Amino acid sequence: MLAILNGKVLPTEEAMVPATDVGLLRGDGVFEVIRVYNGVPFALEEHFDRMERSAANLQVQFDRAAIESDTADLLASTPDHDGCLRLVSTGGGTRIGFLEALPPIPPSIKLTTLPYHSTILLDGVKSLSYAANMLATRIAVGRGAGESLLVTEGGTVLEGPRQSFVCSIDGERLITPPLSDRVLDSITRRTLLATGLLDERSIHVDEIPQMKEAFLASTLREVHPVSAIDDVELPAPGPLSQAIDTVLRATIAEAVGGSA
Amino acid sequence: MLAILNGKVLPTEEAMVPATDVGLLRGDGVFEVIRVYNGVPFALEEHFDRMERSAANLQVQFDRAAIESDTADLLASTPDHDGCLRLVSTGGGTRIGFLEALPPIPPSIKLTTLPYHSTILLDGVKSLSYAANMLATRIAVGRGAGESLLVTEGGTVLEGPRQSFVCSIDGERLITPPLSDRVLDSITRRTLLATGLLDERSIHVDEIPQMKEAFLASTLREVHPVSAIDDVELPAPGPLSQAIDTVLRATIAEAVGGSA
Repeated sequence: MLAILNGKVLPTEEAMVPATDVGLLRGDGVFEVIRVYNGVPFALEEHFDRMERSAANLQVQFDRAAIESDTADLLASTPDHDGCLRLVSTGGGTRIGFLEALPPIPPSIKLTTLPYHSTILLDGVKSLSYAANMLATRIAVGRGAGESLLVTEGGTVLEGPRQSFVCSIDGERLITPPLSDRVLDSITRRTLLATGLLDERSIHVDEIPQMKEAFLASTLREVHPVSAIDDVELPAPGPLSQAIDTVLRATIAEAVGGSA
Repeated sequence: MLAILNGKVLPTEEAMVPATDVGLLRGDGVFEVIRVYNGVPFALEEHFDRMERSAANLQVQFDRAAIESDTADLLASTPDHDGCLRLVSTGGGTRIGFLEALPPIPPSIKLTTLPYHSTILLDGVKSLSYAANMLATRIAVGRGAGESLLVTEGGTVLEGPRQSFVCSIDGERLITPPLSDRVLDSITRRTLLATGLLDERSIHVDEIPQMKEAFLASTLREVHPVSAIDDVELPAPGPLSQAIDTVLRATIAEAVGGSA
């Protein structure tokens, strides 16, 4: 696989950054992961927009024009790439892009609830400071689940550590927590909301036993059916999840011109 | 200045890490900063102990013996180093040590209060995911202060983004928030508690106007007098701060054998 480092395309294993970069020493920087379907990225502008907002909120330098140029050069290096594009911009001014394979994604996933609170300061920032997110996944795997479901101490259901959470309580409408509950402004979440098949409202942990179906949503997983939350089992996929998945796939296929 | 990368001493500017290291891409790893007085580190074992606890809590690999060996080799490379030693261990298994100059520290510092909440998941972890901490300092500087004072939405005073907070309300005893308020288990805080001149108790933001004196405490700052918190001005240093500073300096001087 190829990478691009400060404008230079090179094999990923040759991309090296100074050990003193604040991106490494302080997790001080921003990133995005974009799905690329047969060479065509989906929602690229929305990802650039969020990366720019993240950098502005974090008050770190960000050269959007250079990152757009890097992205074009890297995608041109492998015109048939089917997988992911990872973009990183550190507070030290280091720009990195990677072409990556899609990670393996099982047909459905079990979740385990885990206490979490946003730092407040990083609301609206998709930062390189993701150690809590990585630990949340490790704890889930240690409990025999596939991923965690983050819940505040007050019982508000938030999201997965790297995924939006969507469910249905009444079996008629899908719901997802509002951004005011301090969840990530996910691009996939935005795309799903635009279908009109999904509403925003706060979800309480006590509602889990009443849930009819649920899924995780992300750039890489798209609609990923949840088969259980703690000891509550769910159909995976449920009918509402299948319906919105069909609409999402059509939206993506239209956007990438038959490359999906 | 010299660094050590996976056991090899080299000039800091030549220390390069793979761009794919999870320490960079995810802030997934732990670090410590140790004060070195004329070649002699202070509280080195306590820092190794905390680094090991941090890695265990974060569930990342950690090779204490190798890091101890790296530290000995790096300190031996510059036997008269007076400044800092930074140690980093990433979830990808990369070990880095740096000798660094002391940053400039003004005689006193103004603080500005800022809302913050710990992630819960990273309690007890001094991780590479410090973007919120770095942003907290940038916001403070943007407001004309030197550092921020992190306060929960419920009004509980916590700490600086990279410093413990100590104050006196009654002018008779110094107090600092307990670890149960989710502050860092700071080595300097431990050393100060061991003097018997400092008590632990929760502090509320409404108590700030009553404060008689305050200071930030950290490995690099030791006792750093606070001259104002928002619009509340304080003597810097106050008499209790001066007294505990004298005891701390004596403790350090004894430990490093006259090198301080």
